[in-house]
Amino acid sequence: MTTTDDRTQAQDWTPRYLEKGGFERDTDYIPDRITLEEGRSQDPYVGQLESRTWPATPGRYRLVAARACPWANRSIIVRELLGLQDVISLGTPGPTHDARSWVFDLDPDETDPVLGIHRLQEAYLNRFPDYPKGITVPAMVEVGTTQVVTNDFPQITHDLFFEWRDHHRPDAPDLWPADCREEMEEVMKRVYTEVNNGVYRCGFAGDQESYDAAYDRLWTAMDWLEERLTGRRFLMGDTITEADVRLFTTLVRFDAVYHGHFKCNRNKLVEMPALWGYARDLFQTPGFGDTVDFEQVKQHYYVVHTDINPTAIVPRGPDLSGWHTPHHRERL
Amino acid sequence: MTTTDDRTQAQDWTPRYLEKGGFERDTDYIPDRITLEEGRSQDPYVGQLESRTWPATPGRYRLVAARACPWANRSIIVRELLGLQDVISLGTPGPTHDARSWVFDLDPDETDPVLGIHRLQEAYLNRFPDYPKGITVPAMVEVGTTQVVTNDFPQITHDLFFEWRDHHRPDAPDLWPADCREEMEEVMKRVYTEVNNGVYRCGFAGDQESYDAAYDRLWTAMDWLEERLTGRRFLMGDTITEADVRLFTTLVRFDAVYHGHFKCNRNKLVEMPALWGYARDLFQTPGFGDTVDFEQVKQHYYVVHTDINPTAIVPRGPDLSGWHTPHHRERL
Repeated sequence: MTTTDDRTQAQDWTPRYLEKGGFERDTDYIPDRITLEEGRSQDPYVGQLESRTWPATPGRYRLVAARACPWANRSIIVRELLGLQDVISLGTPGPTHDARSWVFDLDPDETDPVLGIHRLQEAYLNRFPDYPKGITVPAMVEVGTTQVVTNDFPQITHDLFFEWRDHHRPDAPDLWPADCREEMEEVMKRVYTEVNNGVYRCGFAGDQESYDAAYDRLWTAMDWLEERLTGRRFLMGDTITEADVRLFTTLVRFDAVYHGHFKCNRNKLVEMPALWGYARDLFQTPGFGDTVDFEQVKQHYYVVHTDINPTAIVPRGPDLSGWHTPHHRERL
Repeated sequence: MTTTDDRTQAQDWTPRYLEKGGFERDTDYIPDRITLEEGRSQDPYVGQLESRTWPATPGRYRLVAARACPWANRSIIVRELLGLQDVISLGTPGPTHDARSWVFDLDPDETDPVLGIHRLQEAYLNRFPDYPKGITVPAMVEVGTTQVVTNDFPQITHDLFFEWRDHHRPDAPDLWPADCREEMEEVMKRVYTEVNNGVYRCGFAGDQESYDAAYDRLWTAMDWLEERLTGRRFLMGDTITEADVRLFTTLVRFDAVYHGHFKCNRNKLVEMPALWGYARDLFQTPGFGDTVDFEQVKQHYYVVHTDINPTAIVPRGPDLSGWHTPHHRERL
């Protein structure tokens, strides 16, 4: 059993976003995996491997992940939590890509210092000269050949946990506890369809009816989460799991972009006591908040989506000082 | 001394709003006044009358004021507070005017039942056949001739108080207390330039630099108001004045439209304890909240300003249930 429900492609690269009717996320992407050895997975839930596999060899891959992007943010967090910084390096494109590609415009000479490329697109074209799809992050890129290996973001974080175990730091958290794996898959599925993707469904709705339906779906899920997290410190109980990582990357962007830019505005996160406490608890945990760059997040959404923000003016708010305030969730 | 600093024209009728550089409100409009008698004012601060004056005769005028518009909302509130409903009737155009005019599209046959017109523009053209400016609300219209008398919104509420005194209800509030008139004029001036107009300066900024400057001005004023209202129940002390009416119409729209649509998003009003308590105190006072139609307010801004909201999709939020919660401001 793998998280196939979560298999989709982050489409933030495209120049136009609005969909006539409801927003549908493109779910076709490079299915290769990086596993313990070629052809062998360490995930006890995974049987026969159907995709091409690459071996989990230290130093062989570079994770390319824009800090602005929530799908990429997941992989940055998991890499930190598991202590994989020394075996998988990190390349970070800037927040405001153009219609063709994410771009390494924050690096000296606007070139990634390890891959030696200006556009992430180059790594995709090195692998597939006629690559027809979006140039997305996160992407695992083979350093020696500068070829993209996979951009399958839910699989990337799954494999960082199961396939790179030999390289985790000694006290790495158990992000996929076996005793709640099945329930966790269900929670992650709902978080993905209703929240991670639900905010985009609100923001990219092309008409009022689609938006109204998307808003109702989102807030039904937000109320479910508020209730679930009122009695639990984390989504699956007392410890942080992959499910928390996946929810966090949306929550941390909620007031800064989704509330206004995507019209997810029933409440701010700060008005939801359990979710706000939970989000701060994670934010203040090493590996979470220290991977978040609010300025890059705001730049990305407000500058790139000119069809919903034609001026490309980036709001100065919200006041973010609350992220560092005590949450008292340790009492749960 | 009159409130000349507040003399401006509500420009919500124009099809395009964004200004290269900073937003400047057009301040040229019809300066006629309706006074106690032709040529004689009851305001002790007013000396020689320079504008053409019309007599304050019951039944002679119809106040045309869209519920969506904050400048028009002032006049609806003052008319209610002073009990002038029987001497000045009210016409209410719908929220989503077109490029030419506010339209009576909420009335049967889309025609104002007293004036017999479909577009407010007709009353302007009856008075000035070549009227070149925006068709704005509020407007006082002479019923017999269907001619606009004035659209000078700060003067309209001023004159409802001073010039229609003979027709006020017996227990009408003293909206312009003589003992604080000078300070009140200063407060109203700052509220107008920094808050009433300040939110528009944020929303219609044509570039990042203008927006950033507008945001700073707005929040400097909001912090001043938060502090001022921490120790005072109302802006001028223990009783409601014209200054409160003028601030209220912006505050009541703040979370519903200005926070997101105009990027005034440092905080929601509900995050400002004194301002939020103050706004609820007024909202729950007869003549204030009962004049507010949040759906019309949201329709107006999100549908009309297609250059900042191209989809014209109207957000479902925010949750407005808090407006009816206890404010405890009577303890001040």
